[in-house]
Amino acid sequence: MTSAQQSTRTATLTTPNEREIHIEREFDAPRDRVFALYTDPQFIPQWWGPRDTTTQVVEMDCRTGGDWRFICHNSDGNQTGFRGTYREVTAPERIVQTFEWEGMPGYVSLETAVFEDLGDRTKVTTTSTFYTTDERDGMLGSGMESGMNETYQRLDELLERLAGG
Amino acid sequence: MTSAQQSTRTATLTTPNEREIHIEREFDAPRDRVFALYTDPQFIPQWWGPRDTTTQVVEMDCRTGGDWRFICHNSDGNQTGFRGTYREVTAPERIVQTFEWEGMPGYVSLETAVFEDLGDRTKVTTTSTFYTTDERDGMLGSGMESGMNETYQRLDELLERLAGG
Repeated sequence: MTSAQQSTRTATLTTPNEREIHIEREFDAPRDRVFALYTDPQFIPQWWGPRDTTTQVVEMDCRTGGDWRFICHNSDGNQTGFRGTYREVTAPERIVQTFEWEGMPGYVSLETAVFEDLGDRTKVTTTSTFYTTDERDGMLGSGMESGMNETYQRLDELLERLAGG
Repeated sequence: MTSAQQSTRTATLTTPNEREIHIEREFDAPRDRVFALYTDPQFIPQWWGPRDTTTQVVEMDCRTGGDWRFICHNSDGNQTGFRGTYREVTAPERIVQTFEWEGMPGYVSLETAVFEDLGDRTKVTTTSTFYTTDERDGMLGSGMESGMNETYQRLDELLERLAGG
């Protein structure tokens, strides 16, 4: 399997203060390509969510002020929704959006993703900000870290396929 | 005008820390009545917003997990929207909801309104929490305080009419 290196890479997760989660992850692809996979609805079902999930893009108006909503269909037949609003979309370097799991309506966090050009590679730094420490810690306790790493591995694999690797 | 006393009453607005706005206001009506006016869609157009505004309830699923959206039609023919999600609705004492002006999509704040039973009167304490100090100060600079006092005066007058005063 040629994607062995990417598949074992993990993101760096830190909690720099009482209300934030900070995540850094590098990808072996140029910034324009990585940014495109984050912002183009046709690619979302190919990487967004854990492996046993099929993600359906219900709405993705990926520009400043637009809304998004995804429904994740799990292998056990259950489904759950996620939604938010793009506060800022500045290609190819920055996306600021709200994030809300529909299982806990009204628990909205703010996600800032910064795409750093490293030549053939791209570093994506995501900062999630919560209203309170309890809400931040609830997210940390939800298993988000393993789901996130699986999502990033799927993104590695999609980037490799698109590069013809 | 019998509502002179209510019409000159102002809310107490404080900023107890760097991310919150705290507002206290008393109403001359029992708690059940005040809570009903906050939560029943038929009453919203009669008090929500400044006097030169006609508020239309597009959606108001006023229960834990439900969404709301109002459109305010101003006297100059312009309109603007507000929306959010009820995180908690516990009658007759507590409403926790998100609040977002559609003119700044993705700038979501969290509002907690607590209704305190003072017998014939009710004290409503509203705490708005923002992700950052800048967002809080942006709200403070928007003229929200005068709009809020006008809204509360309209609520005074509606409570008086409903009481047959």
